[in-house]
Amino acid sequence: MAKARVRHLALRILLAKPLSYWQLLKQIDVDIPTTQKVLKELLEEGLLEYQNNLFSVTPKGKEEAKILGLSPFVSIRCPTCQGKGITFSSFQELLEFFQELIVERPKAISEYDQGYVTPADTVARVLFMYQLGDIEGKQIFLLGDDDLTSLALLASGWPKEVTVLEIDERILKFLEKKAASKGWTNLNIFHYDARYPIPEELRQKFDVFLTDPVETVGGLRLFLSRCVEALKGEGGVGYFGLTHLEASRRKWWQVQRDILDMGFTITDILRNFHTYLLERDDILNLELRVAKEAPVEVKKPEIDFYTSNLFRIYAAELPRPLVKGKVDWERELYYDEEAYVTCPY
Amino acid sequence: MAKARVRHLALRILLAKPLSYWQLLKQIDVDIPTTQKVLKELLEEGLLEYQNNLFSVTPKGKEEAKILGLSPFVSIRCPTCQGKGITFSSFQELLEFFQELIVERPKAISEYDQGYVTPADTVARVLFMYQLGDIEGKQIFLLGDDDLTSLALLASGWPKEVTVLEIDERILKFLEKKAASKGWTNLNIFHYDARYPIPEELRQKFDVFLTDPVETVGGLRLFLSRCVEALKGEGGVGYFGLTHLEASRRKWWQVQRDILDMGFTITDILRNFHTYLLERDDILNLELRVAKEAPVEVKKPEIDFYTSNLFRIYAAELPRPLVKGKVDWERELYYDEEAYVTCPY
Repeated sequence: MAKARVRHLALRILLAKPLSYWQLLKQIDVDIPTTQKVLKELLEEGLLEYQNNLFSVTPKGKEEAKILGLSPFVSIRCPTCQGKGITFSSFQELLEFFQELIVERPKAISEYDQGYVTPADTVARVLFMYQLGDIEGKQIFLLGDDDLTSLALLASGWPKEVTVLEIDERILKFLEKKAASKGWTNLNIFHYDARYPIPEELRQKFDVFLTDPVETVGGLRLFLSRCVEALKGEGGVGYFGLTHLEASRRKWWQVQRDILDMGFTITDILRNFHTYLLERDDILNLELRVAKEAPVEVKKPEIDFYTSNLFRIYAAELPRPLVKGKVDWERELYYDEEAYVTCPY
Repeated sequence: MAKARVRHLALRILLAKPLSYWQLLKQIDVDIPTTQKVLKELLEEGLLEYQNNLFSVTPKGKEEAKILGLSPFVSIRCPTCQGKGITFSSFQELLEFFQELIVERPKAISEYDQGYVTPADTVARVLFMYQLGDIEGKQIFLLGDDDLTSLALLASGWPKEVTVLEIDERILKFLEKKAASKGWTNLNIFHYDARYPIPEELRQKFDVFLTDPVETVGGLRLFLSRCVEALKGEGGVGYFGLTHLEASRRKWWQVQRDILDMGFTITDILRNFHTYLLERDDILNLELRVAKEAPVEVKKPEIDFYTSNLFRIYAAELPRPLVKGKVDWERELYYDEEAYVTCPY
């Protein structure tokens, strides 16, 4: 059970050292509502205490940890690559180039469910795709691009063509301006709302897609369907992110069911590949459930606690979108009972 | 299409430097029969040539690579952890202890589809499981253990209990002897043939399972079903390996369908996590299809070319085995049309 898992993980992490609420969320691979519930129980049972914004294990908690067979947690994450398995060494210039390109990027709007991953993670994702042969000479389809991955792709010089569909015109204008300033002619942009089908001329035209969907089951199904419709056929490849924080394992199961139903197999799942640079002030100001329903009074995050996992999927047969045509969804596209870091209005 | 993928990957890898047949197999994530076919085509088209046991790109091949947008491949794999994302630094002693323990291990029998992963990979897998909270205080079920992972688990001191079901009595005796010599009392062993149901007293008793199944769809379904039957319930966790070499993406799709049908979601897929120490002489001597049907005359492997991916799965609901009761399968358990490194008799 997910609750037993939180109990197990929280105790052994805190045996090693006291941590803030945000640090705990980052290290526990369970959805936020469950983690909140269990932390509350552990406090009430007197196994944990909370002082000066830090959780720690009480003597009673140490007894419990002993019964559970737990010892203070020691991380085994590679210090060189932070567990991603990727080195920048041959491509340091690409990272620097990308960082220059994005200096004046549009500010993320939390109310639009925006919030981009770190520039290093964006480039690491591009390198991972490169390693797997999914960029060179390829036609690449991006649904949403507040990460500005298209610029990292273009900066690499590898893709044949990059096409971005995005609802935020500030981002489209920024991409257009940057591409023009560098003389890149292989970028195509479309102002696009995912509730509508993708333009006719983009169907079955691409080798690879990349998207970072909203995290409702319906939203994921919609975003992936739009992307799948853009792929040429069998052998097509897709990349997207999925969190632990706003997606329970039950939701993961449903998403994976959809992926298989669309004719894809999952080839890679890289844990915590992306760290997001959310607007830290907004977490409290927007009254997000992650803060409002925390079991203790929390300050604004002192770390970037929000991470997601990188999925790669491969069309083992002819890709079949599950959603076709226009949909009329409104707020339910973004918001469900597990949406704790998504703006509720 | 898988064939286009082999073409793409082979050309860009060979643009960087000439490689042997075995090195190519190791670097291409497509099933062996498809890779063999495409290499044959590339030779016939004059895009590749084969001399002194090495494939290289011809001038005509370089033209083709240019058209495809390919440049010489540069690996982005982290040199510190070889892409696994794991450091041994805090647990160097565990690795050394394990290496001592296994010095006199029984020799793998290729005819039984045995062939174990490197000791470092076995310990890396244990560390990965530890990182995810799946060992400390847990009851762990191993179906087959020619890797001797049980000894690495016991050496760590973390598990509550380790239970091994294995058909090869040499391995069981070896485990028993080693555990006795160290005074470990939390190892249980069972002589077991996967065609039979697991012993009654082992059903629904475990937190975590680990297995390295045969690679037919039916064999995978059988092995995973036996393991699933051993788990306590929702929240149970499983680990297993699956190759690219003997499992096409179509087979991956079917295996993942089975996983979801059993109530599990896939939480991690780590590419090429395991390297196997196959008996290199046997590859030619046993007339395995990987050698016999190679598009060129090959020598015995000069590297350990056989790798597999590490899956972690999590029971999002009550686990449901797909196979129950006894099955009468014989050779078809081990052998299908994609089995190119498995002994045909």
